[in-house]
Amino acid sequence: MVIRENFENNLKELKRKINEMGELSIDALEKAFNALKMRDVEIALKVIEEDNDIDNLEQEINQFAVWLMAKEQPVARDLRIVVVVLKISNNIERIADFAVNIAKSTIKIGQANSLLDLTDLEKMKDISILMLKKSLKSFLEEDIALAKEVGDLEDEVDDLNIETYKKLTGYLSEHPEETNQLVQLLFVNRYLERVADHITNIAESTAYIIKGQMFDFNP
Amino acid sequence: MVIRENFENNLKELKRKINEMGELSIDALEKAFNALKMRDVEIALKVIEEDNDIDNLEQEINQFAVWLMAKEQPVARDLRIVVVVLKISNNIERIADFAVNIAKSTIKIGQANSLLDLTDLEKMKDISILMLKKSLKSFLEEDIALAKEVGDLEDEVDDLNIETYKKLTGYLSEHPEETNQLVQLLFVNRYLERVADHITNIAESTAYIIKGQMFDFNP
Repeated sequence: MVIRENFENNLKELKRKINEMGELSIDALEKAFNALKMRDVEIALKVIEEDNDIDNLEQEINQFAVWLMAKEQPVARDLRIVVVVLKISNNIERIADFAVNIAKSTIKIGQANSLLDLTDLEKMKDISILMLKKSLKSFLEEDIALAKEVGDLEDEVDDLNIETYKKLTGYLSEHPEETNQLVQLLFVNRYLERVADHITNIAESTAYIIKGQMFDFNP
Repeated sequence: MVIRENFENNLKELKRKINEMGELSIDALEKAFNALKMRDVEIALKVIEEDNDIDNLEQEINQFAVWLMAKEQPVARDLRIVVVVLKISNNIERIADFAVNIAKSTIKIGQANSLLDLTDLEKMKDISILMLKKSLKSFLEEDIALAKEVGDLEDEVDDLNIETYKKLTGYLSEHPEETNQLVQLLFVNRYLERVADHITNIAESTAYIIKGQMFDFNP
């Protein structure tokens, strides 16, 4: 019983750290997008700098999870949770990397007049953050219904991604003088689509804990 | 002693599967790039189709690794290896995903006159495949010198990536009629840079097994 209790306490701590990491990455995404919108290179640099904290937290979580596996030797569902924690921390780390990529695009765009209004990028960012909040909550509370909602929202991001691609390349072929910014916005469009993919992975991993099998919410 | 022997045999099997997965992804990259070069949509579709095999192999490896952790409850270095196998299989899966992305770009480019000769993309692909072979060998043989060579080669890919970005955006601003293909080649340029990143991760994971601490070969 003591071992079981220890395991539960350690698991709570792991979940707390995953949530902390998730919140840092939500913050990074918001900041990076704001920097893009305001053409604020200072904020963009801050996002890049602060990514270290998220990377360190991932390392900490991984070491904790590996230590927990070695010490408590969990089986079945308990083992699944610890393995999934490794996957989720990796997905969050990659979401934060995309925030860094958006920050780098912001720096490359510099002070050019923003063409962001041509696109649905802000909407894609808003939906992604909603998805990330839902996927974290679904993991923390082991709520399968929330995990499924994440999959549905991803379809919206995919549609906006295709739409934005068309708008940006159409505009680009008529405004070659804006190549630099438009190419960067095309990259941001891609980054946000990938962010939504990784969030969906978190939801799928959560479903795996609950149901014991992998789901593909984005077939 | 019997347990130890079992563990060693299972580890050999895991390594064999990682190697198989690595070779499938080398094949996918070569095929995808050939399709891009020859504007061959048939081959591109084949790359996308065959990616299922690589995804399945990753699942198989992960399940095997988790089963091995539960059954043999390895500690210290043995546990590090099994955890690293999970990371490496994930990196290989992502490399294969980029081969799929290149195949999708090939389909989007279609039959337009190839502008590939403007770029260093083929050279980047060749170096990436050399890196991948070295990183797999370094993992299988636990050879730290080979792992370090991978880090050096990544610098070459990064330089070619910057060069190619400049050439493509420069050409794009003068040839807006080629927007579609040039944007896709800009994406391929990005994909190959990311492929090299993931290969470097494999080398860093290998160094972690050997030395027991993480290295950053791409600071």
